[in-house]
Amino acid sequence: MDDTNHPATDSPDRTATDRAATDRTATDDEFTVTPDAVDGEVDYRKLLDRFGADELTDGQLDRFPAPPHPLLRRGIYYAGRDVEPLLAAVEADERVSVVTGVGPSGPMHIGHVFAFYFAKWLQVETGAHVTIPLSDDEKFLSKDQTGAETRAYTRENLRDLLAVGFDPKRTRIVVDTADADLVYPLAVALAEHVTPAARDAVYGEPANIGMGFYPAVQAAHLLLPQLIDGPHTTTVPIAVDQDPHVRLARDVAAKERLPVEKPGALLSKFLPGLDGPGKMSSSDDSPTIHLTDDRETVHGKLGRAYSGGRESLNAHREHGGDPEVDVAFRLLHAFFEPEDDELDRLAHEYRSGDLLSGELKTYAADRIADFLDAHQARRPSEDDLDAALVPYRVTAGERDRALSRMGFG
Amino acid sequence: MDDTNHPATDSPDRTATDRAATDRTATDDEFTVTPDAVDGEVDYRKLLDRFGADELTDGQLDRFPAPPHPLLRRGIYYAGRDVEPLLAAVEADERVSVVTGVGPSGPMHIGHVFAFYFAKWLQVETGAHVTIPLSDDEKFLSKDQTGAETRAYTRENLRDLLAVGFDPKRTRIVVDTADADLVYPLAVALAEHVTPAARDAVYGEPANIGMGFYPAVQAAHLLLPQLIDGPHTTTVPIAVDQDPHVRLARDVAAKERLPVEKPGALLSKFLPGLDGPGKMSSSDDSPTIHLTDDRETVHGKLGRAYSGGRESLNAHREHGGDPEVDVAFRLLHAFFEPEDDELDRLAHEYRSGDLLSGELKTYAADRIADFLDAHQARRPSEDDLDAALVPYRVTAGERDRALSRMGFG
Repeated sequence: MDDTNHPATDSPDRTATDRAATDRTATDDEFTVTPDAVDGEVDYRKLLDRFGADELTDGQLDRFPAPPHPLLRRGIYYAGRDVEPLLAAVEADERVSVVTGVGPSGPMHIGHVFAFYFAKWLQVETGAHVTIPLSDDEKFLSKDQTGAETRAYTRENLRDLLAVGFDPKRTRIVVDTADADLVYPLAVALAEHVTPAARDAVYGEPANIGMGFYPAVQAAHLLLPQLIDGPHTTTVPIAVDQDPHVRLARDVAAKERLPVEKPGALLSKFLPGLDGPGKMSSSDDSPTIHLTDDRETVHGKLGRAYSGGRESLNAHREHGGDPEVDVAFRLLHAFFEPEDDELDRLAHEYRSGDLLSGELKTYAADRIADFLDAHQARRPSEDDLDAALVPYRVTAGERDRALSRMGFG
Repeated sequence: MDDTNHPATDSPDRTATDRAATDRTATDDEFTVTPDAVDGEVDYRKLLDRFGADELTDGQLDRFPAPPHPLLRRGIYYAGRDVEPLLAAVEADERVSVVTGVGPSGPMHIGHVFAFYFAKWLQVETGAHVTIPLSDDEKFLSKDQTGAETRAYTRENLRDLLAVGFDPKRTRIVVDTADADLVYPLAVALAEHVTPAARDAVYGEPANIGMGFYPAVQAAHLLLPQLIDGPHTTTVPIAVDQDPHVRLARDVAAKERLPVEKPGALLSKFLPGLDGPGKMSSSDDSPTIHLTDDRETVHGKLGRAYSGGRESLNAHREHGGDPEVDVAFRLLHAFFEPEDDELDRLAHEYRSGDLLSGELKTYAADRIADFLDAHQARRPSEDDLDAALVPYRVTAGERDRALSRMGFG
């Protein structure tokens, strides 16, 4: 999984320059959206036409557990693939799996956690099983980072994933190199059905033969719950620009007549970076709120974030601010203010000019810092990580089932 | 490792049709030698010029343990890379590793075992450590065989490898999928330094992205002893057509400034298939003597083998036979008749017409059957395989050392 399979704020991964990849199928004169680059003003509906995915309907939203998660009811997750079978399985209380991962290329930031907390919500509300792959191989191969650096990032990210509080009985965390005894044979079994041409059509020419192979590893991630436990409904919450990953896995699943159903997807819009809307950051040193930031740091970073307020206090009091482009408001809207009434009040007061930009930022910073305080309190120490991870690791029995299913058992 | 890294008789792998690969660097108007195809009358000296390898000198042969193995002193292993450092290490009683593997694409035949018995000879005579990779991933990906078939071939081949009688304290057997927790992270670490263009220059466009990655796995095989135990002299006994594999691993080792020395090689000529000289077989159903054949089968197969005898008994008695093209004699010469005096007597009597073709075949079939009887007696049963394999498997400590060396520990 790319580490942008989430409604990212300013992901360091959505860069056109540090990989040679371009999606030859999803670009036109107005805007470009590929797994590696987002440029221009995105028309989210048009993007679905290009990708062949479907917008979530109000009827579908009503069929999620009530109330739907803010990310759903506020339209961040706005589209999907095979949402009907997902909802049918939820309604029938059948087994459902959610796959959402992260690529360890640095410390995790608030853009990374949406998908995980959303997956946890699905787990709590529907009993969903959650599979979390960490693509340390892909980050080592695609980024300028050593094995040791990759390993250190991986361990940092694992601590954040454990802090989310998944139910270990229904959650598996897989690290590509550490679980290679499972991941590699499955990837080999799937790689047989991916030609270099099919790969390059999605990702462009790979920089090295490891990246050339990686789509097979990613397909193994998305099919892993079914390879272990047999065919059942699987969905992948993922930012819409990462949808090609899902399409490739769906193509593999179909071609091979594997004992799996095609994985579905829940596709999200992008969130603005701290620098503001339409400025999806493409550099690693752009400002972002890390999961380990303390309150003071959060307030400082949000204080410098792009604002929808007016240039002067008087102008703001007179004309009001624009919550639609205000980063503090967007973050509250997407995730950090779960109360709709409260959010409406903030939007109303901001538009009217009663709520100042600095006041909105302080409010948002407090909500984010509250969230991070709780997250950090659940984060295991480096010393405790290995022990804390044990109940989340794929068991020998699960591994053997998956390998047997592919003939490698 | 391709399963033709041995002086093959009639390897089912040396085919031009079942893979799309062609070596763009090793072909001219007269003959073609690539990892996938051998065509035309091979000029072995010219081949060394093309590949940039060196013919073994008499002085070098004298520095191997005396007497040199028949495969050496009779010129089957006729060339090499970095033979001087190998001999220096042997003379200084320093650690030396030998890497020679097999690709499980069917039952092993007599063409497969030369390299392993040669490696065992080096182990007995010099204390060499031996690493034996089984590339079940590569065979699954390149052949029309399922995971289950590949697994069955792998287990059959493992039984033959154990029958060779390696010293488990100095021998490691690695199966790519079963030892993926070691092999995959190392391959990833090496893959970073192999571009698709460099790969394709050696192997041509891969049929799938798994084969595109495999050269990194093969490089991991050839560097494995050094990745586990630190830099030391390593040599790869391999048929000369497979030399590109070694060159690629040498390039990787050099590019990456890894804590390894470039692996050397001992390069062998091809042996004739049972169909005769200049007829390197390229089909899976060509006649070959399997390691599980009984005496009667060996006699039957050799009875139908290409002969250097005359068309009639009288012509043979009068003009004599030609041992140079006689398959029975070539097999005795290469491996199955270790006594030089006896071999000279056979050649002399065959040339003079005193020894008939049928008599020579019977003699050779007896020697081969004797060899196979002893081999089969040491071959563990399917039920005993797992237990018999244990002392040959990479230990957790060895795995951790290798992963740590690459930063993935």
